[in-house]
Amino acid sequence: MNAVGVVVEYNPFHNGHAYHIEKARKETGADVVIAAMSGNFLQRGEPALLSKWARTRMALHGGCDIVIELPYNFATQQANSFASGAVALLEACGCRYLSFGSESGEIDDFLSTIHFLKESNDKYQHLIKQFVQDGNSYPKATSLAFKALSPHHDQTVDLSKPNNILGFQYITAIQNQGAQMAPTTVTRKNADYHDESFNTSTIASATSLRKALFANDGHIENIQRYVPAATYNGLMDYYNEFGLFHNWEHYWPFLQFRLIQSSPEELRNIYEVEEGIEYRLISAAQEAGSFSEFMENVKTKRYTWTRIQRICVHILTNASKEMMLKNNMPQYLRLLGMTDNGRKYLHHKKNALQLPMISRVSSKNEAELSLDIKASKVYGLAATSLQSKKLLKQDFLQPPVLLKTANGLQ
Amino acid sequence: MNAVGVVVEYNPFHNGHAYHIEKARKETGADVVIAAMSGNFLQRGEPALLSKWARTRMALHGGCDIVIELPYNFATQQANSFASGAVALLEACGCRYLSFGSESGEIDDFLSTIHFLKESNDKYQHLIKQFVQDGNSYPKATSLAFKALSPHHDQTVDLSKPNNILGFQYITAIQNQGAQMAPTTVTRKNADYHDESFNTSTIASATSLRKALFANDGHIENIQRYVPAATYNGLMDYYNEFGLFHNWEHYWPFLQFRLIQSSPEELRNIYEVEEGIEYRLISAAQEAGSFSEFMENVKTKRYTWTRIQRICVHILTNASKEMMLKNNMPQYLRLLGMTDNGRKYLHHKKNALQLPMISRVSSKNEAELSLDIKASKVYGLAATSLQSKKLLKQDFLQPPVLLKTANGLQ
Repeated sequence: MNAVGVVVEYNPFHNGHAYHIEKARKETGADVVIAAMSGNFLQRGEPALLSKWARTRMALHGGCDIVIELPYNFATQQANSFASGAVALLEACGCRYLSFGSESGEIDDFLSTIHFLKESNDKYQHLIKQFVQDGNSYPKATSLAFKALSPHHDQTVDLSKPNNILGFQYITAIQNQGAQMAPTTVTRKNADYHDESFNTSTIASATSLRKALFANDGHIENIQRYVPAATYNGLMDYYNEFGLFHNWEHYWPFLQFRLIQSSPEELRNIYEVEEGIEYRLISAAQEAGSFSEFMENVKTKRYTWTRIQRICVHILTNASKEMMLKNNMPQYLRLLGMTDNGRKYLHHKKNALQLPMISRVSSKNEAELSLDIKASKVYGLAATSLQSKKLLKQDFLQPPVLLKTANGLQ
Repeated sequence: MNAVGVVVEYNPFHNGHAYHIEKARKETGADVVIAAMSGNFLQRGEPALLSKWARTRMALHGGCDIVIELPYNFATQQANSFASGAVALLEACGCRYLSFGSESGEIDDFLSTIHFLKESNDKYQHLIKQFVQDGNSYPKATSLAFKALSPHHDQTVDLSKPNNILGFQYITAIQNQGAQMAPTTVTRKNADYHDESFNTSTIASATSLRKALFANDGHIENIQRYVPAATYNGLMDYYNEFGLFHNWEHYWPFLQFRLIQSSPEELRNIYEVEEGIEYRLISAAQEAGSFSEFMENVKTKRYTWTRIQRICVHILTNASKEMMLKNNMPQYLRLLGMTDNGRKYLHHKKNALQLPMISRVSSKNEAELSLDIKASKVYGLAATSLQSKKLLKQDFLQPPVLLKTANGLQ
């Protein structure tokens, strides 16, 4: 049995994701699709709309056969660490391919871009340094440096686009880790990553879907055409059960409290808190009445919005530098869910998996999973007390989601 | 000008307090009454109903001339530290007397009880140790030891009663510190400290008043006869402005969050967290849906309810062992309010005060006041965001309350 890996957040799962899985399966001829999926907090430093369990259910209905949690210390990191953790997970699962979405849909374009940047590396690094010194954030400087190098032939991809950056980082991680997986890419349909408004087709970006969900609290009818039925029902069920779709504002009281009660010294233990931003965070927390107001007060040219949000997630989950940097590679495969087909694959490969598989939290693995578990608990606090209790203990009580279908497709 | 000191929480100020002040003034012939008042968190490990500023206003209307804040690191401690800090503050203000309420109203009874316990000290300490070894909390053991010694002559006071314990501790602190103040006591009227039900007079305990306020959220008419008009109006104004009377349930989400995101090691830095109670607290936080449910889960024979509540206050304010133990005596006089008469006294004594007077928080004194300020900020988080902003910054913006009356009486 052959597997193709995908790296996902599914926030929420939509028709574009289903299209990607279907194409990846078809183009690679793989028998199973394995998703490395972020847990409850995401790469852009935000809580996921729905818990990882609800999103796993959607993923299995949408065509994935196996969902493995990308551990917190990779899921909430900048693109290179994020990609590096995801690639290591999928490689450990024995994936033969890694498939990602891109505008161009040509894997050769990525390979030649990487080749071009390797050749121009001295100049590239010099330019990045220069742009950082000019006061730009690191991602901005990277993008400006890339533009300045202006590789004007057809076989390059534009690394100022977020999705291209991720693709670029996946391939780089595969090369750096000497992974056996072959990278492959599927042309994205219609919606741009940052597209906030709907178009008339059945494809919309996750960003626009989230925007629509929050604009019409609890009324989800207007996103129905853009998501599979299982996502639509899953969203309704989640809202009925827990009374919310999670967003940063739900966690603002906790963030504000923690910033107000902390000393700058304590905050400096937290991952990515450095260069004096702790003073800025503490002072802004006293002034702001909401998370968005807080972010407006904190933002600066030197820090991207995303980086500040990630710092805030780490403050919320109390993720110290020590804990975040303890392992630079994943140490376990946390199984969130599988189809019958996925189970067959895991049974078949059980002696070939390169990392221990964890299906249930127990006293034996609790310490190792502590960051993931803490993130889940804090995530659960957004719901009102009774629901919160269920959410915050879910990591201990929930067995992997099991979907009984022939091939994981609806 | 002569001053009599009182040690108070005024949670809230009621007719019994007004009676005490009037009697203390008359019996000692003092020109001014100086109150050492707890800030926003109290000796029993609870948030005050109303902020220290609102309570200061009530105190000045009720007969106090000067209100000085008892710093957090004394106000939230067991009786001996609490009394020791309060006595030092009032002595530093130049008080000639310290007056406290008691059942017997005979200062000689206290003095002879102290004398008796000093003489029986070996036996007393031995008994206390024995009762602690039997699994009793320290306060319980002290009370049992006192009963076992059974000083059966008329000139002793019953040290199993909370108010008598405080009186006992005030005198002990005066003696230990070699203070110049003379202790004196006023017979309490009617209401017992722990009395939860109203009687027919106009005196009711603060406990019963709080109970009535929380039972009828926002409707305060039924306590009108037990409090001066200024308290009644102050309560109404506060509720109208901030929308609440503070209680532990308002802080439960923050306490739960902090317990869930903390490691046991971090919690052990907090004052009074020891002997493994950190594990008990963390585990109970996951199960409970409210503060009262949490307390039911945490309580144990070894710890009094009050001690656990104090620990929870320290976790809320992030009061470390280091910060709490830095100074075993007050270092400043934080002026919360005064009448014209009080101002005259302070002007008169300004070169005789034994500690620096702080009227406004500034960059010069902010570090010294940090625990008091942090407590105020956290206290402010109970209100909704807009009011919260005002409350949590009040320590920086609020000048001492000034009451323009001839002698501070209504």
